[in-house]
Amino acid sequence: MKTLNKEILRKLIQASTQKINCDLVLHNCKILDVFSGEVIDSSLAIKDGYIVGFGDSYEGDQEIDLEGAFIVPSLIDAHVHIESTLATPSEFAKAALPHGITTAIIDPHEISNVLGVQGINFMIEASKNIPLDFKIMLSSCVPATSYETSGATLNAKDLNPFYSNPNVLGLAEVMDLDAVKEPSPDMLDKLHDASINHKIIDGHGSSLSFLDNNTYRVAGISTDHECTTLEDAKDRLQKGFYIHIREGSVAKNFDALIPLVNPFNSRRFTFCTDDIYINDLVNHGSIDTMVRRAIKSGHHPVDAIRMGSLNAAECYQLKSKGAIAPGYEADFIILSSSLEDFKIKTVYKAGKVVFDDNQVFFNHKVSSKTKMYNTVILPDISIDDFQISSDTGHLNIIEIIENSLLSKHVTKTIEKGSFFIPTYDDNLAKIFVIERHGHHGQIGKGIVKGFRMTRGAVATTIAHDSHNLVALGMNDLDLELAIRRVKEIHGGIVLVKEGEILAELPLDIAGLMSSKSLEVITHEIKQLESAASSIFHELSFNPFLTLSFLTLPVIPELKITDQGLYSTKFRDFIAIDQTN
Amino acid sequence: MKTLNKEILRKLIQASTQKINCDLVLHNCKILDVFSGEVIDSSLAIKDGYIVGFGDSYEGDQEIDLEGAFIVPSLIDAHVHIESTLATPSEFAKAALPHGITTAIIDPHEISNVLGVQGINFMIEASKNIPLDFKIMLSSCVPATSYETSGATLNAKDLNPFYSNPNVLGLAEVMDLDAVKEPSPDMLDKLHDASINHKIIDGHGSSLSFLDNNTYRVAGISTDHECTTLEDAKDRLQKGFYIHIREGSVAKNFDALIPLVNPFNSRRFTFCTDDIYINDLVNHGSIDTMVRRAIKSGHHPVDAIRMGSLNAAECYQLKSKGAIAPGYEADFIILSSSLEDFKIKTVYKAGKVVFDDNQVFFNHKVSSKTKMYNTVILPDISIDDFQISSDTGHLNIIEIIENSLLSKHVTKTIEKGSFFIPTYDDNLAKIFVIERHGHHGQIGKGIVKGFRMTRGAVATTIAHDSHNLVALGMNDLDLELAIRRVKEIHGGIVLVKEGEILAELPLDIAGLMSSKSLEVITHEIKQLESAASSIFHELSFNPFLTLSFLTLPVIPELKITDQGLYSTKFRDFIAIDQTN
Repeated sequence: MKTLNKEILRKLIQASTQKINCDLVLHNCKILDVFSGEVIDSSLAIKDGYIVGFGDSYEGDQEIDLEGAFIVPSLIDAHVHIESTLATPSEFAKAALPHGITTAIIDPHEISNVLGVQGINFMIEASKNIPLDFKIMLSSCVPATSYETSGATLNAKDLNPFYSNPNVLGLAEVMDLDAVKEPSPDMLDKLHDASINHKIIDGHGSSLSFLDNNTYRVAGISTDHECTTLEDAKDRLQKGFYIHIREGSVAKNFDALIPLVNPFNSRRFTFCTDDIYINDLVNHGSIDTMVRRAIKSGHHPVDAIRMGSLNAAECYQLKSKGAIAPGYEADFIILSSSLEDFKIKTVYKAGKVVFDDNQVFFNHKVSSKTKMYNTVILPDISIDDFQISSDTGHLNIIEIIENSLLSKHVTKTIEKGSFFIPTYDDNLAKIFVIERHGHHGQIGKGIVKGFRMTRGAVATTIAHDSHNLVALGMNDLDLELAIRRVKEIHGGIVLVKEGEILAELPLDIAGLMSSKSLEVITHEIKQLESAASSIFHELSFNPFLTLSFLTLPVIPELKITDQGLYSTKFRDFIAIDQTN
Repeated sequence: MKTLNKEILRKLIQASTQKINCDLVLHNCKILDVFSGEVIDSSLAIKDGYIVGFGDSYEGDQEIDLEGAFIVPSLIDAHVHIESTLATPSEFAKAALPHGITTAIIDPHEISNVLGVQGINFMIEASKNIPLDFKIMLSSCVPATSYETSGATLNAKDLNPFYSNPNVLGLAEVMDLDAVKEPSPDMLDKLHDASINHKIIDGHGSSLSFLDNNTYRVAGISTDHECTTLEDAKDRLQKGFYIHIREGSVAKNFDALIPLVNPFNSRRFTFCTDDIYINDLVNHGSIDTMVRRAIKSGHHPVDAIRMGSLNAAECYQLKSKGAIAPGYEADFIILSSSLEDFKIKTVYKAGKVVFDDNQVFFNHKVSSKTKMYNTVILPDISIDDFQISSDTGHLNIIEIIENSLLSKHVTKTIEKGSFFIPTYDDNLAKIFVIERHGHHGQIGKGIVKGFRMTRGAVATTIAHDSHNLVALGMNDLDLELAIRRVKEIHGGIVLVKEGEILAELPLDIAGLMSSKSLEVITHEIKQLESAASSIFHELSFNPFLTLSFLTLPVIPELKITDQGLYSTKFRDFIAIDQTN
């Protein structure tokens, strides 16, 4: 998007007064006006990437008759971690543009946890020259907690200089409840810096209490995407948080939250994905799908589309986004259907076609200098490291909840003094988290229930939030091979069955993202998923993403990090072996 | 309002977590939550002027049982010229607080036209230490047009330094359509400066065309308070302007515009007064009255109250205003009635009672250094200056429209070569505008229809926008006396009948505002209005305000400035005497 400097402003004014020609005039449009909630029959005049007027008297270098098609604002993903797509921003754009998304509010939380300031700078650089606007929130909690070992630390003084970048909108998902409540000096600095810079502060308040929500809001936090229940969301809504309704590859809150939305409060809701695999985005869409689902669930199309556009723009102070009106960026969608059906035919970004009739018009090569290799630094591992024994015979076990970031803490009894051996019948597997940033190589050990794993092993360097290496397996040899292979390919996901590497997805950028094209990545993911069916039985969820979130100690109930099993209930580490 | 520095933020967080006591806890409240549109039964905890939490477990140094009373956000006047009240900011506050108004978005347009930068600085200083927040928009059009002579000129370079003041929210009412459309270099600078400083730009688009509204919006202008018809307002609404529904002492647009508001679009509407006499504010309220009228006209109380609070806060990026929620300023109203009746019992500003049971709890003396004397510098005037003759016998005449800023251009025939003599039967009077800033003392002459003046004369230094001296009279001797007296008292309003000064209102601050107390000013205004009935017949409008707006050449149809009669239709000056 061209910056609105004085010369461009002059030209826009001159185009609006018809002193100079427009670049493009779309005639015979049905423009959805998100301010009035009405459909306007008019032409739409565009100059230098901006809309300069409604009205039939404009002349353009190019003029197109839309024959009465609906035009709606293009969509905004209100909160997304690009790293979780496994693709770079350019490849994300290729996947997102066909779904009408032209703006993403991104938090480089994952790469920041691996590479700190260098990670944020990478994402800023990698987001340039792409016909999708990436607006950056600064990762607030790196490391996310003291319960895991990250690759880097970001203090307030590291973040503050970024506020001079106009693409930086604020402070990203504040998840360290303790630091806010204290408040710790560094967290107070971060909150205050964002506030005095007139920036937005995102929350990440998983299972906060009623009083905690007071504190979060008092701290200046004005959004949250971690609402999972109506009660959660209602309390936050009432306290003035914007509610980002999230529907990602793992966390799916749309069905739970959409009943809360009504015409009175809808202006306070937006849509986001948070963490979405690139092939889920390609195949199932994201914000566009939420808009369609909202309409199907009985919400007025205008309210549904506003949740995907204007509301997010208002939430993030994006004054020229989220609507089709003079002075707004010429980012919009032409539908091939009614508003209700919301079928996307063409997508315009800054006045140019970027998607039309199933084709993306945009090419971008990741430049080699933006790669971030050699970030997987592991200790020497032997199969002895994978032994889990029990003195008491009572084991603490993580039980996954399918398609949720939450887990349960369950227990199991085995023979005292014996070694734990995973079996399919028990629906149990071993899980290990190995510090991979080259600090100390500590290994956290655990047992997990619910994966329906039959054999083999999986290892991945995607392990929220510190992105250590996490490995899941039914036998120690396969575990060792999977881990060794991940190290060889500089990070990624490796799937092993009986001594054989069945599939792998190299993630050469910080062990998080692939530098390859959208087509190659989606193919590799497909292969990985296909291979998964030979070691997992009847999968009804994404095992890789689920695995990657088992290491997130801020989300209840029992999680695992490089430092061991962490219970959010006890707010402390616990041994695998129950001692009482 | 205390600035939210790091120390206060820390204390607010600690109070919200109940580590330290609150200053005040209100129990048993029915809190109107403008986000959800619901009423919350809860206590409300307050610390250091901010709300720190909902919930019944807070303890405060002071605790009050509200016995189930409704609490609603206090109100915001989205656009007001304090000078037009005739009072200083402190006396405005004394009048506004009983009506629940705790924030005013002000444009020092009048004093800027007299004193330029010095005038803005005066208003900034005079607004300090008052329990009503004055947020300042920088007067964009000083002089308003080249068709009148102002006391000062404000260029972009004069305004730009003010953006570093956190109380300055943007660029005030842009009224110079020609300068925007050109765009003139200085107007382009002003628009661009506001934009790059992330500030708001207010419009003042009287009778703009459909294409002009495109241009205004493209220029970055995002509000307008000059909508007088549904059609006007609808076009602006659709183009993304916030519509400030105005109900002042002269311009009254509420009834015309409120039918446009519906639950779908209400978030884009706010309430403002623009120009209101202080005694109208005292006696009839302003934003509170609009809220009540909106409810009476069938709008949901939540929507009506939002128009008076949250919407204006969002429009002006006031992140901690317009709602009752943790982290918001503790500015609110306790009602003695249902939401529907909206009867104001108590008003809190920054957690302190500022109005309760018909009493304002606030004292403020205007310091002598903030006075702005000696701004009325007139030429020598004799009664010969008041002669109006006609060579052609065809006179161009201004006809006022009661309670409107608009006027009509009518004509009258008199005997060729004769002098015009006003008569009550013709409902005509003489009008003169005399340059009073000491530049050249030019005198504009005219005839005005519709005042139902019977005798005497009125002179005032309030004459929008350049605030030259305007005098209206039925005979030349009384005109001369009124003008002479205005000069003696350093500006103000003087009413003369048959050689006698019947009443006067000295406006010693720039000839616009009185340095006296609210009580004295309202008494003087009352005397003036009472005296008015002896020279005007059956008044159904305010003759002083109407007079003051006849000099506004940007508003159709025929107006008068120190340079003569100005026709908005011809976009040029015309002679009194028709030449063809």
